[in-house]
Amino acid sequence: MTYCLGIITESGLIMAADSRTHAGVDKVSSFQKLFDFSVPGERVILTCNSGSLSLTQGVLNRMRHDIKAQAEISLQACSTLYDAACYMGGVIRQVHQQDGAWLKQEGIDFSCRFILGGQILGEPPELYLIYNEGNFIQATQETPFFQIGETKYGKPILDRTLSYDTPLATAAKCALLSIDSTIKSNLSVGPPINLVMYEANSFLVQHQLNLGADNPYLIKMSTTWQNTLKQAAEDIPEIDWDWQAEYLKKS
Amino acid sequence: MTYCLGIITESGLIMAADSRTHAGVDKVSSFQKLFDFSVPGERVILTCNSGSLSLTQGVLNRMRHDIKAQAEISLQACSTLYDAACYMGGVIRQVHQQDGAWLKQEGIDFSCRFILGGQILGEPPELYLIYNEGNFIQATQETPFFQIGETKYGKPILDRTLSYDTPLATAAKCALLSIDSTIKSNLSVGPPINLVMYEANSFLVQHQLNLGADNPYLIKMSTTWQNTLKQAAEDIPEIDWDWQAEYLKKS
Repeated sequence: MTYCLGIITESGLIMAADSRTHAGVDKVSSFQKLFDFSVPGERVILTCNSGSLSLTQGVLNRMRHDIKAQAEISLQACSTLYDAACYMGGVIRQVHQQDGAWLKQEGIDFSCRFILGGQILGEPPELYLIYNEGNFIQATQETPFFQIGETKYGKPILDRTLSYDTPLATAAKCALLSIDSTIKSNLSVGPPINLVMYEANSFLVQHQLNLGADNPYLIKMSTTWQNTLKQAAEDIPEIDWDWQAEYLKKS
Repeated sequence: MTYCLGIITESGLIMAADSRTHAGVDKVSSFQKLFDFSVPGERVILTCNSGSLSLTQGVLNRMRHDIKAQAEISLQACSTLYDAACYMGGVIRQVHQQDGAWLKQEGIDFSCRFILGGQILGEPPELYLIYNEGNFIQATQETPFFQIGETKYGKPILDRTLSYDTPLATAAKCALLSIDSTIKSNLSVGPPINLVMYEANSFLVQHQLNLGADNPYLIKMSTTWQNTLKQAAEDIPEIDWDWQAEYLKKS
């Protein structure tokens, strides 16, 4: 499995991904899932992916090939991020046409999803979630984050801490906490964690980290969070077990 | 969907369940999932269930019938909780024999799981998770809780706050927080929440609540938790984005 997320706020973007890939518990390996296709000063384009590794690598390789071949349409030739999302959806469909029927023969679903985030000169920052089928949705102020892969463990923390006006540095911490919570509860998601913080209108990826399991900040953050949750659970007012009896009497 | 959990600690048991049942978004209803088969002073027996409502109700109705008919084996006739788990597994298999093939014809999986918790005079408190197939596992000090249904959203909070030596009143709050987190992130889990706290060796269910969405404690707990998480995410030390550069220089 995998866990990746993208966040858009009024001040920029966060993209984050774990690195664990597995096909059964005895076939566990580490593959990067967050990629940077930026052209400094002109465009920031970041992708992360979940699903079958052969399919996501297939999509990434075709996209890299189009850039190298200076194709008419590529991540470095499109003029809006919407165009980039259309293009990525098209590449996913090409891979589907190539591999889909062969996978189906073996009862394997065609499974790959991408988050695309970035900003192209003259455009605002945008964030997209691109599905298996090549169609996609765009994040808005009401729903400022997308998750792919093993999404459930890390969702409550995002639901409770994030909004479009969250400061970017705090959103980066929320992303790390969301991935760290998932790693703690599910063996199929694991470090290193790739994290990028992009400040709107800078057209430059200035903040990125690759955090291994032994990273001192990650360890400290995880421990601090655990202690805070434990303390918070203790500090919440005790349950009033007589409440219902009283309530029933009153009603 | 559903979300239920059972917790065993050195001082007793917590059992908790939501009440939402749905077959599609236009067929949402409320059914109790936590049931009390106790005989005060002699045995405390609590069950909660997830899966197809027709199957879980089938199991519960057969168990009630056996009690009423004063059958040789029933939840009120067994002498250990292990025997009760064996018995419940057997009842699940009876329902499977009755309905399984008919469901299979329509491509519907036979799906029902139970958590069984309690204490019978002369025995310690115990907690079991009983599977579809009628087999079961018992909670231990290392893994003092079981979840069934929509389990992922509420697992991180349990992983981070619970252990066998957690005070029982705190464990009850953790259970509520776990369910509340799930309700906030997933529409298929919903109030009222049924909650029981059983103190070991009391052989009496003295603490139980049925908390509706408008319950003032539940609202306050949920708001307090949300504020605490937001504050905690802000309070965690800022990410040192230069860390990696330094680390690379050092290595």
